Amino acid sequence: MAVLGPNRYGKAETRVVRVTRHGDAHRIKDLTVSTSLSGDMAEVHLSGDNSAVLPTDTQKNTVFAFAKKHGVGAIEDFALLLARHFADARPAIHHARVAVEEHAWERNGAFGHSFVRSGREVRTCVAHHDGTRSWMVSGLRDLVVLNTTNSEFWGFARDEYTTLPETRDRVLATAVDAAWRHAEAPQDWDKTYENARGALLAAFADTYSLSLQQTLYAMGTRVLAECPGVCEVRLSLPNKHHFLVDLAPFGLDNDGEVFFAADRPYGLIEGTVLREDAPAAGPAWE
Amino acid sequence: MAVLGPNRYGKAETRVVRVTRHGDAHRIKDLTVSTSLSGDMAEVHLSGDNSAVLPTDTQKNTVFAFAKKHGVGAIEDFALLLARHFADARPAIHHARVAVEEHAWERNGAFGHSFVRSGREVRTCVAHHDGTRSWMVSGLRDLVVLNTTNSEFWGFARDEYTTLPETRDRVLATAVDAAWRHAEAPQDWDKTYENARGALLAAFADTYSLSLQQTLYAMGTRVLAECPGVCEVRLSLPNKHHFLVDLAPFGLDNDGEVFFAADRPYGLIEGTVLREDAPAAGPAWE
Amino acid sequence: MAVLGPNRYGKAETRVVRVTRHGDAHRIKDLTVSTSLSGDMAEVHLSGDNSAVLPTDTQKNTVFAFAKKHGVGAIEDFALLLARHFADARPAIHHARVAVEEHAWERNGAFGHSFVRSGREVRTCVAHHDGTRSWMVSGLRDLVVLNTTNSEFWGFARDEYTTLPETRDRVLATAVDAAWRHAEAPQDWDKTYENARGALLAAFADTYSLSLQQTLYAMGTRVLAECPGVCEVRLSLPNKHHFLVDLAPFGLDNDGEVFFAADRPYGLIEGTVLREDAPAAGPAWE
Amino acid sequence: MAVLGPNRYGKAETRVVRVTRHGDAHRIKDLTVSTSLSGDMAEVHLSGDNSAVLPTDTQKNTVFAFAKKHGVGAIEDFALLLARHFADARPAIHHARVAVEEHAWERNGAFGHSFVRSGREVRTCVAHHDGTRSWMVSGLRDLVVLNTTNSEFWGFARDEYTTLPETRDRVLATAVDAAWRHAEAPQDWDKTYENARGALLAAFADTYSLSLQQTLYAMGTRVLAECPGVCEVRLSLPNKHHFLVDLAPFGLDNDGEVFFAADRPYGLIEGTVLREDAPAAGPAWE
Repeated sequence: MAVLGPNRYGKAETRVVRVTRHGDAHRIKDLTVSTSLSGDMAEVHLSGDNSAVLPTDTQKNTVFAFAKKHGVGAIEDFALLLARHFADARPAIHHARVAVEEHAWERNGAFGHSFVRSGREVRTCVAHHDGTRSWMVSGLRDLVVLNTTNSEFWGFARDEYTTLPETRDRVLATAVDAAWRHAEAPQDWDKTYENARGALLAAFADTYSLSLQQTLYAMGTRVLAECPGVCEVRLSLPNKHHFLVDLAPFGLDNDGEVFFAADRPYGLIEGTVLREDAPAAGPAWE
Repeated sequence: MAVLGPNRYGKAETRVVRVTRHGDAHRIKDLTVSTSLSGDMAEVHLSGDNSAVLPTDTQKNTVFAFAKKHGVGAIEDFALLLARHFADARPAIHHARVAVEEHAWERNGAFGHSFVRSGREVRTCVAHHDGTRSWMVSGLRDLVVLNTTNSEFWGFARDEYTTLPETRDRVLATAVDAAWRHAEAPQDWDKTYENARGALLAAFADTYSLSLQQTLYAMGTRVLAECPGVCEVRLSLPNKHHFLVDLAPFGLDNDGEVFFAADRPYGLIEGTVLREDAPAAGPAWE
Repeated sequence: MAVLGPNRYGKAETRVVRVTRHGDAHRIKDLTVSTSLSGDMAEVHLSGDNSAVLPTDTQKNTVFAFAKKHGVGAIEDFALLLARHFADARPAIHHARVAVEEHAWERNGAFGHSFVRSGREVRTCVAHHDGTRSWMVSGLRDLVVLNTTNSEFWGFARDEYTTLPETRDRVLATAVDAAWRHAEAPQDWDKTYENARGALLAAFADTYSLSLQQTLYAMGTRVLAECPGVCEVRLSLPNKHHFLVDLAPFGLDNDGEVFFAADRPYGLIEGTVLREDAPAAGPAWE
Repeated sequence: MAVLGPNRYGKAETRVVRVTRHGDAHRIKDLTVSTSLSGDMAEVHLSGDNSAVLPTDTQKNTVFAFAKKHGVGAIEDFALLLARHFADARPAIHHARVAVEEHAWERNGAFGHSFVRSGREVRTCVAHHDGTRSWMVSGLRDLVVLNTTNSEFWGFARDEYTTLPETRDRVLATAVDAAWRHAEAPQDWDKTYENARGALLAAFADTYSLSLQQTLYAMGTRVLAECPGVCEVRLSLPNKHHFLVDLAPFGLDNDGEVFFAADRPYGLIEGTVLREDAPAAGPAWE
């Protein structure tokens, strides 16, 4: 009566740092890699027969070995390399998913061997390969942005539980979590990343916002406009509320100067912007 | 060319504590509630026209008001009540999703008004309502369990990157993240929760495990066996590795006595067990 | 001109799980151990000469080896054993500090080999040994407690920035972080721990509270009363604010029924209760 | 028999964002402020008499009001202003401690109103005022740095639990947590901060390291050298281990190219560097 449904297994959050030494000017790539495999895995679930199971420990080893053998350039290339390898590694494995996060570093002064972790956003990608076809979603998370003005919120629906006053000027802040699906691989993943990131930042800044939804849509369309090979953008934008503090009890006005940055609850705006002719997503978002 | 795809918005993580006072014996329910609404929301994305948007602040207010008006019993009942209310609140809103997490408390001794937060797992549910139909997924997360024996791992696939030795006795530990979809509402959500939780714990303990996948499948089938109205179970089980420490350099053996509990990387086993005749899931898992 | 001041070094957060197998009924102890050594360490700071430095890796190995050789009973005994070992290990090491945290597990049903992580508080201790004398502080953290009534707050000082209304009935909640210094070692560390924990819980519950400071002092004195060998108690109590939600806009009263549990900011009450004749603390709290 | 020992109370982690608008070019300061007051507080502990207690809510209000009235420049100035105010606010309050953390933002492109949160380190300060004298400690945390070479570790002490091989070339990485005490207030807190930060970064990079202790000492002395008014530096440096992955089983060498970045355990090196003639610290570090 009970049957096995969709399943996958893998090694999550392998932390690998790859150093490249060209004379005195070193380079580092700092990644968190998660791999997931699926295929003919009924037996291991039903009887514990592991003969189709390539151990998660082996997956981890492969990440390290590939970092050595192939180096690490754009995370998308590294993820695809791994996904193809795993999907081809064993007959029972039909599909591989490889997710990579990149943590940015900057040079520490003029020293070729010394680095400072940049706190800027985490760059992400998820690659899928099924033995024949590949899918790629690139993205970022924890890109925290704030506009001090050019944001309003009024004219909203009201019911008996509505007490929120309208505002014609507010702080708008969010931590951008964005992912974009590629219809085709670009020439240069890194350049596409910078274009997409730049589009998100520019659209956040130059959209006069009547709602965070409007800003979200503007950010998504801007990425599509700047990145020809991207066919779909998904955004999750927490509304990091900055409440104007009531200073009237202290005889002070507060004309958009002092805000309380609240933790919870927070608004959460999620949305997708895609090209009309976007190809089917397949497993890309899984 | 760009079009708006799936979207939703709401208030995430409203923290509400509901106290009920029956004489000296008080009760508390401690919830984190997240609401998401969707429907005819094109305009707010395209032009910033908020006339269809019931503010997330209103959603938060509603959570608090409903906690007062209706009390809080089983979280599933509270979630459904809210989902139905929101889906019916405004013509533009076609669909509501309400996720609730419950944090458990125990009585502090014999005192009717004093409580100790129980660290046991977080109970969860996600309700969907589209104005006509409802869907419900219940679950839990952070149920951390460990078996000191009755776990083996051998006979797995090998390739050139495989170095893992086989083992006939290992510690098996995981933090259970489980969710189960109801084909129909049970008489008593709380009793079903305890049945499902008990099934997960018992199956984890009494399954002689040749792989975590086998244990996962046993846990899922046990929930189906114990909960007649449940049609599908999804499990995500991190393999919290406990590595046997090599004490030989110190002239000591280590026959399954001293383990290093590692953080990352970790195996991650994900799988679904469902009834053959499970109805279509619709939006239940979204 | 610059001189080296106080310093120490060690291995932090070694995660060790010790399994004891008595027939089918196993036991587990789950610890996080941090060691710190100090002594004649000027040279390593000034010139990088490591000859006095017992590596932190060795400290980690010792934790594992001792878990095997000596077993793990009360964490205080294990911490003292390690502290004495390290302080005597090398001439250059004059002082050792060993901090241990214990994560509680409960049996999973009647199974002798299966366990569920209890979410109750973390038990802690810090041992010091200088080659001759020892000091011990025991404690706990993350013991979250809440009273639904028997708490007032009024009659406080006011200045021009005071807007807080007085209240004669409020929810009082905190996450107890407590540590108690032993003037002498008790017969049974575990029993003393349970006595101290019980004293904290009982005093929190049965103190009719006019301020969290009053509750703190009652908790500290209760530990002293219940634990004869304890000479000093330090408490850090965040006031986990539960704000009564204003439901009047919705035509609802709220007589202590619905609360918003806030994250930040929070009150923080810190205080010490000690015996008049408490011996000098020496390095105990460092 | 039980007596009240040291105690303090206050409001922790008030999140305040201060916006300054000069035409189109806005500025923001994003702070987390924690205040603690102490003085004649015996009665509130013993009897719950709150007449000496300025509510923590009032302290929060004061933070917001002062952000408006006085603006926010260097966090040290803001902290001192608050500390002096509180220490003078009520006769019963004898001492105030104000801790401020600053979260850095950068401009988002050329837009005067749009900002991106910089992930660089958190800047910190702790001010004390007792009604007459002030003390100031400035600092930073979460400054993550890494050297790919110029680090060795050998010649260390060995005992029966030592298995660590010596190394003549390793990755050295840490998350700097540093604080420096001012003997006198500098002309410009911001400039001193940049000097101290620059000194830490430069010393980390240009010290050929035989041990992390040596690097720590070099960092501390460099801060003293660059900041004449600073008399003491305290550093806490976790050794964020980057283990060279053994790739030999895969027929690959690994000449400092592929590392596993471990989470726990980690070495922890703590030390103080101070001027010989440093004045007594008083309560500065409390």
